[in-house]
Amino acid sequence: MSTKEFDVVVIGAGPAGEVCAGRLAGENLSVALVERELVGGECSFYACMPSKALLRPAQALAEARRVGGIRFAQEAAEGAIDVAAVLRRRDEVVHNLSDDAQMLWIEEREIALVRGHGTVAGEREVRVGDDLLRARRAVVLAPGTGAAIPPIPGLRESRPWTNREVTTAEAIPGSLLVLGGGVVGVEMASAYASLGAKVTIVEALPRLIAGEEEFASGQVKDALEAAGVEVVAGTKATAVQRKDGVGPVTLELEDGRSFTGDELLVAVGRRPRTDALGLEELGLEAGKSVEVDEEMRVPGHEWLYVIGDANGRVLLTHMGKYQGRLAADHILGRSVSLRSDGRLSPRVIFTEPQVAAVGHTLQSAKDAGLNVRAVETPTEGSAGGSFVGRDAPGTARIVLDEDRRVIVGATFTGVEVAESLHAATIAIIGEVPIERLWHAVPCFPTRSELWLNLLEEYGL
Amino acid sequence: MSTKEFDVVVIGAGPAGEVCAGRLAGENLSVALVERELVGGECSFYACMPSKALLRPAQALAEARRVGGIRFAQEAAEGAIDVAAVLRRRDEVVHNLSDDAQMLWIEEREIALVRGHGTVAGEREVRVGDDLLRARRAVVLAPGTGAAIPPIPGLRESRPWTNREVTTAEAIPGSLLVLGGGVVGVEMASAYASLGAKVTIVEALPRLIAGEEEFASGQVKDALEAAGVEVVAGTKATAVQRKDGVGPVTLELEDGRSFTGDELLVAVGRRPRTDALGLEELGLEAGKSVEVDEEMRVPGHEWLYVIGDANGRVLLTHMGKYQGRLAADHILGRSVSLRSDGRLSPRVIFTEPQVAAVGHTLQSAKDAGLNVRAVETPTEGSAGGSFVGRDAPGTARIVLDEDRRVIVGATFTGVEVAESLHAATIAIIGEVPIERLWHAVPCFPTRSELWLNLLEEYGL
Repeated sequence: MSTKEFDVVVIGAGPAGEVCAGRLAGENLSVALVERELVGGECSFYACMPSKALLRPAQALAEARRVGGIRFAQEAAEGAIDVAAVLRRRDEVVHNLSDDAQMLWIEEREIALVRGHGTVAGEREVRVGDDLLRARRAVVLAPGTGAAIPPIPGLRESRPWTNREVTTAEAIPGSLLVLGGGVVGVEMASAYASLGAKVTIVEALPRLIAGEEEFASGQVKDALEAAGVEVVAGTKATAVQRKDGVGPVTLELEDGRSFTGDELLVAVGRRPRTDALGLEELGLEAGKSVEVDEEMRVPGHEWLYVIGDANGRVLLTHMGKYQGRLAADHILGRSVSLRSDGRLSPRVIFTEPQVAAVGHTLQSAKDAGLNVRAVETPTEGSAGGSFVGRDAPGTARIVLDEDRRVIVGATFTGVEVAESLHAATIAIIGEVPIERLWHAVPCFPTRSELWLNLLEEYGL
Repeated sequence: MSTKEFDVVVIGAGPAGEVCAGRLAGENLSVALVERELVGGECSFYACMPSKALLRPAQALAEARRVGGIRFAQEAAEGAIDVAAVLRRRDEVVHNLSDDAQMLWIEEREIALVRGHGTVAGEREVRVGDDLLRARRAVVLAPGTGAAIPPIPGLRESRPWTNREVTTAEAIPGSLLVLGGGVVGVEMASAYASLGAKVTIVEALPRLIAGEEEFASGQVKDALEAAGVEVVAGTKATAVQRKDGVGPVTLELEDGRSFTGDELLVAVGRRPRTDALGLEELGLEAGKSVEVDEEMRVPGHEWLYVIGDANGRVLLTHMGKYQGRLAADHILGRSVSLRSDGRLSPRVIFTEPQVAAVGHTLQSAKDAGLNVRAVETPTEGSAGGSFVGRDAPGTARIVLDEDRRVIVGATFTGVEVAESLHAATIAIIGEVPIERLWHAVPCFPTRSELWLNLLEEYGL
């Protein structure tokens, strides 16, 4: 057994761990980064990145068609989407599941990459195989999450796809069942439908993406249905049948219906990868989210930080990275303050229409006891909508705190609204008074004039 | 002669006049809106709107090509851009130069539309033909600007195109000379090149779009040249030759060179349409911009407002509309404050790359005596750049006031950056401290993560 010493040991080289390690190394701390799989994590190889690669071509095509004036291949022949090319591009985006491209970044920062499974061996100690890594300052856990497999009879035995298989598939099945109508479910239903699969999506709650504004759920459902997806909401799956875990798979529902497809994607939530990290030694519960304080530290263990999905605060790559920066700053002795967190975090669902939201929905604001009013305008209802997202319906809603006269929530749906969200995020986090926002003039003819319509609607 | 009385008389139904009239009518004031041409103005029929219709198809096509996975028509045949379809779509956007579609809006607000040429006839009086319109409260002038024709020998006789002809052309000429490398010049050079014309652009200043960051000028120049446009900067035109004002037109330059094309666009600035408004009667100079105070009133004539291009503060549709809202509010007795104005206004140039800017450039901030630092990042340099604007170079720069710790300027260049600008506008107008901006987390994987890169580059 060899023992090595570092200022900080980080377990998990997904986005949160990478950002934390990089920020510490940038301040000349010695950092060990422990990873048992691919450097870059779930997000880079099996989630955000490949899913966007699968979604984007059909959306760019749809937008180009709406714009008009462009000639496409005769669709009678083989269709305007080149599925093989889309899958090749996806392979490029995930670097054919190699993390070689990450090594330059690691080397430039002189981070010690340790390949293997890291476990906490004691205070400020991490074991990786035969090596013991001692941390002079802190240990940061960023193990992430894996797909949860709910205890539905026959489900596990049916060898369902998770986010990993659905994002890295080498061919598009003829039909796909999707269990779960959250972000992963609706994005993959949208992508696979655009690539030629017959898709059925089953959600137990009464509506898709149930945490978002109701109009967003409705518009995404309508668009999925228009793309040929069968949407079944408000009913639970009770059993899965698949002979020997291959071939056609059948999903049985509590209402008596059943659906059969070539593959089944299970996308009903995430499970923290905290089951084999040695947390029991510290009196913490394995396999659960690890509670942390606002500095991302585990109460009672001031040397131990948990960032990203595994602390259960919010399951979003950008928020994991944010937490990675906060933890690094705290380790560096800087004062930190958590100003964006949990369900109120900015978020984008890359379906078509896209759903971009930050802060409260109208309902969550009311539930939080705020005195709020919501105003709406069609996303494409300004002059700018003549050129981008034309005739593709969307809604922009802001939720205003009538007492504090600031925006506390915003949801934009429509074509290509992802980059429009940051204006709302700055308005909310910056607590810019709405009377001042009125003077932030959106350019003509951009769709950002929806801000003008919203504030006029509010009465400014 | 008949006399009619209104609360407010507005001359000019372009965007500024329309917005002002609409806002007043919305508060139940009686409003006369006088227009001698088309309701909707230069912007709707001969500028912003048709120019975007001409620019967008080639940009949507270029983006779809960058995304990959889409099959286009064989270009060997007739090209992927359907020029006739683009022109038809442009005609749709300008409603075939009819303002009928505006009438519903006018009628709903019970605005009295008066067709004809309005002139100020005395205090609170406007004459339109045989009618005298009396204003109980105020007269608002929103006459706009027309293309300036500089005194270059032979230019006027050559019957050059202005913004009107170039945006409404029924066919694309084989070659187009563009005199002036400002916004109109570069946008139309870009559009016409994409539609098949051989374009030459001549600018007297050393660089195109000279008021913007130098990198923006360079990138737009490179892109125009890559699209086959010949860019000639830093040399003045000295004469124009065109026999009888038809056929080939030749532009002679001071450096001895000359260029010949099928048409010549003159785009070297604007001239306020204040020459036949009766301003001499009030002791004001006709044909010049009319100076106004921060409430948009003409000093010495408290009943007279001038909004939009004609007051010379800033030549942008959205700023004219903003001034229209301010003037209306002031007429309604509300307190108003001008917080966005002049060269610091938000602005977008819809070339490819687009140039979206607000507030100071680094140079203008230094010239204003501010203690600033600029930081930059590639616009497409984040994970989001893998999916939008891939391999299409752009630059994001923010200019930070080191004393006040706020952003005072931002310029984004790249593919589809127009909607990204409003985040910067809110940050600047909201005077959000940069330490707070650090907590406005951009979503992964959106290109808005450039904000993260910029603030990290600054040292946060």
